[in-house]
Amino acid sequence: MKTLIIYAHPEPKSLNASLKNLAVATLESAGHDVLVSDLYAMNWKAAVDAADFGPAASSPLQVPRDSGRAFDSGTLTPDVRAEQQKLLWADTIIFQFPLWWYSMPAILKGWVDRVFTYHFAYGVGEHSATKYGERFGEGTLAGRRAMLSVTAGGPESHYSERGINGPIDDLLFPIQHGILYYPGLEVLPPFVLYGTDRMTDEEFPDVAKAWTHRLLTLDSTAPIAFRRQNFGDYEIPSLQLKDGLEPTGRTGFGLHVR
Amino acid sequence: MKTLIIYAHPEPKSLNASLKNLAVATLESAGHDVLVSDLYAMNWKAAVDAADFGPAASSPLQVPRDSGRAFDSGTLTPDVRAEQQKLLWADTIIFQFPLWWYSMPAILKGWVDRVFTYHFAYGVGEHSATKYGERFGEGTLAGRRAMLSVTAGGPESHYSERGINGPIDDLLFPIQHGILYYPGLEVLPPFVLYGTDRMTDEEFPDVAKAWTHRLLTLDSTAPIAFRRQNFGDYEIPSLQLKDGLEPTGRTGFGLHVR
Repeated sequence: MKTLIIYAHPEPKSLNASLKNLAVATLESAGHDVLVSDLYAMNWKAAVDAADFGPAASSPLQVPRDSGRAFDSGTLTPDVRAEQQKLLWADTIIFQFPLWWYSMPAILKGWVDRVFTYHFAYGVGEHSATKYGERFGEGTLAGRRAMLSVTAGGPESHYSERGINGPIDDLLFPIQHGILYYPGLEVLPPFVLYGTDRMTDEEFPDVAKAWTHRLLTLDSTAPIAFRRQNFGDYEIPSLQLKDGLEPTGRTGFGLHVR
Repeated sequence: MKTLIIYAHPEPKSLNASLKNLAVATLESAGHDVLVSDLYAMNWKAAVDAADFGPAASSPLQVPRDSGRAFDSGTLTPDVRAEQQKLLWADTIIFQFPLWWYSMPAILKGWVDRVFTYHFAYGVGEHSATKYGERFGEGTLAGRRAMLSVTAGGPESHYSERGINGPIDDLLFPIQHGILYYPGLEVLPPFVLYGTDRMTDEEFPDVAKAWTHRLLTLDSTAPIAFRRQNFGDYEIPSLQLKDGLEPTGRTGFGLHVR
């Protein structure tokens, strides 16, 4: 495997750092190639602005169009082009981050906002009577796999089916489906650690064992069965799920899993 | 009213800028006080790091604990303290931003990550047999109201109950419930514009009319009826919704609306 780890935590002695370091060591020991984008160490620029697009930036700035022009003409900034190249190099992409306010840290959202440009991650493929662009199952990153590895401060029950935070699968849906599956990545079930605010060093060996097991079984792990956009499940162009396809009682985000 | 507008778009001639400008003009004309945090113009720092906490930063850095110590001792950076003061000044907070990758732009997530510190927005109140801290209906910002004003590039059908992106209410739940309701804000139904990728100048007058109407009726708009945490709906400390409280067939995030 060629694995790219996108890592977002400011503290090199944090639990997130330990999980990232363990992933590198485990995968390399198993003979795989690993690259890490350590966003804090890279001082990653988080905010999209005109400077991202070089001479392709128009005035007034139009983020989607201008990012696509910059992508097409090769005038995206070197930091963004390097991340796009890493994504194309990899067959497996792991995201390691703490769940802050039920989503990713800003620095990682800024990696998505800036690297996932028009014509690279969206605005790909043609629109027709049977196709609404190449996305959700097709796209630039099709054939690659992604997985979230996430730490959550609160206990697991708060993220359960009836838990006050909402179910973890739903909280992660905008990321797993909306960000990762959109440009074609197959998404493996996430590795989620709960209660990390109160986790002690004594608990780390069990965590490490579980994480190592996930890492060494990536190849045989089935991805989440998100529905593909252009293969008959959705009306086009309304992109509403066709009647009768949902399992009984399934609503909301769950409709989009086969 | 005292309204704080948190605005996140890089282009002063964008649709988001027009909506922000219209909100300022409309509210001021109606006799209200308005403050704007224009995050791009402020060059807002998005990434949480040790520099945020001054002498309260420990090594290794512990983001929740250290942010709380910095809050308690008044050593948060001036930019963060200023935003906390604006929040305490306001009775109404409007967030104006484009939906990028089904969430907020990184610069706005960085406003949340840095301003919503421990002891200010979380880690507030005591834990007991009947109370799990002051949050979700209680907290520092209780008694204030918030509203999202969001532009979405895709058409409304894609965000509908069966739409491929997932229902807009669910996509916004991690923000409206997890970020805004958590520290005590009441959340008004969002103002969402769809299809903005293809919107023409000719459509703006109708948009402006709808937005003006929402702005002038904020006082009489009922908030989303999210369930309060500490008032009998949830088991404590598991924070699972008690059996039988859900409307028939309601699952997922929808469980947490009365």
